[in-house]
Amino acid sequence: MKSYRKELWFNVPARRGFINITAQVNECLRESRVKEGLCLVNAMHITASVFINDDESGLHADFEVWLEELAPHEPISQYRHNLTGEDNGDAHLKRTIMGREVVVAITGGDLDFGPWEQIFYGEFDGRRRKRVLVKIIGD
Amino acid sequence: MKSYRKELWFNVPARRGFINITAQVNECLRESRVKEGLCLVNAMHITASVFINDDESGLHADFEVWLEELAPHEPISQYRHNLTGEDNGDAHLKRTIMGREVVVAITGGDLDFGPWEQIFYGEFDGRRRKRVLVKIIGD
Amino acid sequence: MKSYRKELWFNVPARRGFINITAQVNECLRESRVKEGLCLVNAMHITASVFINDDESGLHADFEVWLEELAPHEPISQYRHNLTGEDNGDAHLKRTIMGREVVVAITGGDLDFGPWEQIFYGEFDGRRRKRVLVKIIGD
Repeated sequence: MKSYRKELWFNVPARRGFINITAQVNECLRESRVKEGLCLVNAMHITASVFINDDESGLHADFEVWLEELAPHEPISQYRHNLTGEDNGDAHLKRTIMGREVVVAITGGDLDFGPWEQIFYGEFDGRRRKRVLVKIIGD
Repeated sequence: MKSYRKELWFNVPARRGFINITAQVNECLRESRVKEGLCLVNAMHITASVFINDDESGLHADFEVWLEELAPHEPISQYRHNLTGEDNGDAHLKRTIMGREVVVAITGGDLDFGPWEQIFYGEFDGRRRKRVLVKIIGD
Repeated sequence: MKSYRKELWFNVPARRGFINITAQVNECLRESRVKEGLCLVNAMHITASVFINDDESGLHADFEVWLEELAPHEPISQYRHNLTGEDNGDAHLKRTIMGREVVVAITGGDLDFGPWEQIFYGEFDGRRRKRVLVKIIGD
């Protein structure tokens, strides 16, 4: 069994944003030389997500509006977590909705994707360097 | 390490619906001859889900009502994604709540499940043929 | 390829609660002797979750309030699932938000975690013994 590990670093200039990381994960897969296996991609921070959806800017705007409805950033004081001095209580909840990780099949040396599947990093408490882990196992 | 891959196709006649696919995933597991490993089951479309829960029709009705509250289909115009000509903005959000994939342990040649765990395909933009991927790795 | 399996049992005295199970999963990893691979941790019950987030009591209080807003326990009669005689319709929805499972990379014999990542068991219908499955594969 082969295994491969890489950290991808991101620094989103705003509090929130989505980055298509499919090309970087594909590059990891090339480096791993794994042909059949599984690829785990996860946020290493608990106020960020990795998820799969469509690379369409209208949809991303919809996600932003929707997540703000489900877990508004303000008022800061509505979250007990923010009593610790943080202002990112909402980011923990938003990341919960969007998910920590994806597991993608590897078949014939490629990410085994449907036609519109793309991997995104979802940032909910940005303006600093944060990491995504890519772990690949297989043959 | 063995690996196995199969696509399962579904055509839900309504916009939304849930299908118990546990028997089909079990059949894949038999075909794979894997005794110890992991089984990934994921929607290959970004307006559909694969999830694990109870096979109880009242619960499925509750999911339908609840998802419509969290991400209503109408008015279509509330989603910027629908400016692309689609009417499935809500389906992308509903699938996000329900999840893209499940990873199930394989032990002794069986799906290693608790007593009520069943695997479902969740369709949120149906009336056309769509796919689920089953990928199994192990020994 | 090595594989390892263990059930962890919990009995949360209240209806709802969160338990940090990271130390127990680490113990499983030691026992498995796997150095490179993947670790699946999943609830075996459909009214409970396994998720990764921060071990901060304010955040856990925020999760409790937030989940009660998204899927209130009462009135019991609002859920068709409860017509079966159960009162846990909300628990199935809460678990859906928080997730059934996590997949964690194993690197150099350790859980490959960011600085704040901790694994939690999330109980939404407690006061009885319930199980979490730990399945590890790798070399």
